[in-house]
Amino acid sequence: MIKSLSILGSTGSIGRNSLRVVENLKGKVEIEYLTAARNSKLLVEQVRHFNPKAVALADRKSAREVRKALSGTGVEVLSGRDGLLEISGRDDVDLMLNALVGSVGMEPTVRSLQAGVDVALSNKESLVMAGHIIQKIMSETGTKIYPVDSEHSAIWQCIVGENSDRIRRLILTGSGGPFRTRPIKTFAKITVEEALRHPNWKMGNKITIDSATMMNKGLEVIEAFWLFDLRENQIEIVIHPESIIHSMVEFIDGSIKAQLGLPDMKIPIQYALTYPERSEARWEEIDFPSLSPLRFEEPDMEKFPSIRLAYEALKEGGSAPAALNVANDNTVKCFLNNEISFSQIAKINEMALNEHHWVEHPDLEDLRELEEWGARFVEIQKRERTTI
Amino acid sequence: MIKSLSILGSTGSIGRNSLRVVENLKGKVEIEYLTAARNSKLLVEQVRHFNPKAVALADRKSAREVRKALSGTGVEVLSGRDGLLEISGRDDVDLMLNALVGSVGMEPTVRSLQAGVDVALSNKESLVMAGHIIQKIMSETGTKIYPVDSEHSAIWQCIVGENSDRIRRLILTGSGGPFRTRPIKTFAKITVEEALRHPNWKMGNKITIDSATMMNKGLEVIEAFWLFDLRENQIEIVIHPESIIHSMVEFIDGSIKAQLGLPDMKIPIQYALTYPERSEARWEEIDFPSLSPLRFEEPDMEKFPSIRLAYEALKEGGSAPAALNVANDNTVKCFLNNEISFSQIAKINEMALNEHHWVEHPDLEDLRELEEWGARFVEIQKRERTTI
Repeated sequence: MIKSLSILGSTGSIGRNSLRVVENLKGKVEIEYLTAARNSKLLVEQVRHFNPKAVALADRKSAREVRKALSGTGVEVLSGRDGLLEISGRDDVDLMLNALVGSVGMEPTVRSLQAGVDVALSNKESLVMAGHIIQKIMSETGTKIYPVDSEHSAIWQCIVGENSDRIRRLILTGSGGPFRTRPIKTFAKITVEEALRHPNWKMGNKITIDSATMMNKGLEVIEAFWLFDLRENQIEIVIHPESIIHSMVEFIDGSIKAQLGLPDMKIPIQYALTYPERSEARWEEIDFPSLSPLRFEEPDMEKFPSIRLAYEALKEGGSAPAALNVANDNTVKCFLNNEISFSQIAKINEMALNEHHWVEHPDLEDLRELEEWGARFVEIQKRERTTI
Repeated sequence: MIKSLSILGSTGSIGRNSLRVVENLKGKVEIEYLTAARNSKLLVEQVRHFNPKAVALADRKSAREVRKALSGTGVEVLSGRDGLLEISGRDDVDLMLNALVGSVGMEPTVRSLQAGVDVALSNKESLVMAGHIIQKIMSETGTKIYPVDSEHSAIWQCIVGENSDRIRRLILTGSGGPFRTRPIKTFAKITVEEALRHPNWKMGNKITIDSATMMNKGLEVIEAFWLFDLRENQIEIVIHPESIIHSMVEFIDGSIKAQLGLPDMKIPIQYALTYPERSEARWEEIDFPSLSPLRFEEPDMEKFPSIRLAYEALKEGGSAPAALNVANDNTVKCFLNNEISFSQIAKINEMALNEHHWVEHPDLEDLRELEEWGARFVEIQKRERTTI
């Protein structure tokens, strides 16, 4: 049976890997829709190769370039946020892979599930922002989310065939990022270039910075909370610098299951596309005797306050995780633009978490307002940053 | 629902751990039968605590002691090999846990499955000796074997909910035993005491020597071959000195699942008793940050020729694995009695493998004869050992 698929964010790191997986699956998956932010050149190449019905580009100028390049092909080219949302809501696909980055990915997840389409979710901000909204839509529409993050895919694979109420705890592993061993007193001097140099994973800029601050692991805790329906004290973080064990599940009898592999997103992506089946793939194989020893450490909460913030936001509940997340989207952008220092990312995020207007059950409108508030709040803090 | 259980070998290491598991399961499992070789004192204590219907002791003198101690209690006391086999064949239990050591455990497995009773199998020699016979009985009677070995339990747990024809390879881990780093030129001087000092696992004598020669890992390869219905080139051995990862499964998509835990047989025993459920247990818990780094190495085939012998026997098929196994039962006994040297264990095993009368489809009678032949063969080699 051929599965029809749309990919949001097809020109990004996860998007490109997803298309390699689609090629590996040799005709078992058909691409119906692709979307990108602004990489018109790559999107046109992808269209020529995968032949979707329609594409969307968030940037209107890039959309015009693509429309020109594809004129006469019959491929529909949409543009802007509207175009993205329209494609997200189309119900003539079996699965939507959401590889968007940041809070902008949340509404497309909602649209897809509302349209009755399952979502392969790489955009962790969707559940961080709107976990309770998404859970409600899923139960109303009978749709499902298939995790694409390597950690959540690992957990998902470990609990296949198990009774989920027999889980004692999840152990989310994290590499610790590029600053695991860097002395905290030099953190103020961290440059963008240093923060973009991840030791194990090659990823997009936003998630690479989130890995450096370890906010990424915090967001994953919140994502796991919603995906696997657990209490926050059942979700632990362990630093594992080699990134070979992608995460673990301990069951009530003390038995622990783990999923392992080289750091390669193609495995979790393919699993999300083929689940509950597995399909042949020959990516780079793990050779255990040649591996460096696998180490485990406690996360350093002082160096990486973002982890603590994520647990706090989860305990507060309501709009708190969303507030933390929208602040982080903006502080990471500011850091990438050299407008704030590395340490200021978590400091401003914490201020946003404390100062935002808390709502118990935020609806989509509340979340949109929160996004705008987050952008303004970080802008103001950035201007006053000498006083922070 | 209460599960009724018999335990063969209840006074040994696995037997005693099994009874601790039964206690942990608080009334969910009821003991109907216990058997032991000769430890009358411990067996009487176990009877007083667990209140079985009947017991058997292989040693007739010990049986008389137990009969005396239990007179008036109504507990039936059988003796000798006959007594053991009779209890093995009783069909008024839900599950038989076979914790016997060596080839003597094979026939009880066969009897139990023939009687329509599932077997929780710790006696790996059963499948090594009579894999094809056992497979046939299982398909005729619809019975099942639940592995109790930590490695096979790990694999079993990893494939729950998975399609077994999606397995690419099994990775059996082994600690490498006490002589992993010992120079091969000093192997001739290995003492019984040194060989009994296993770095991670506390086990009975026979399996501890098998771990030191790594014949244990070889037997496990053969056991896995029958349990999981694979080709021998799909089963690999990796040395993992810390014994935290108990084994792994790689699927066709390159994803690897592992089961982990401290070296404690109670977890695989309990899983075999509660499968497909899991029950609460609070054994010693793993604390990842405090673990030594997890290492992996290739097995050293020169130091540990037993591994090679097991693969060769598996390739030859027919009676070859049984011949290797009966020889090993006897060579290990001789080594424990200081009658042959450590290196001679594998040498005599290899001779037995080469010289035995090969049969393609040995029946139980052939296997009984092979057992006798093995004892005689090793006895002769032992006497001539100065010439080996």
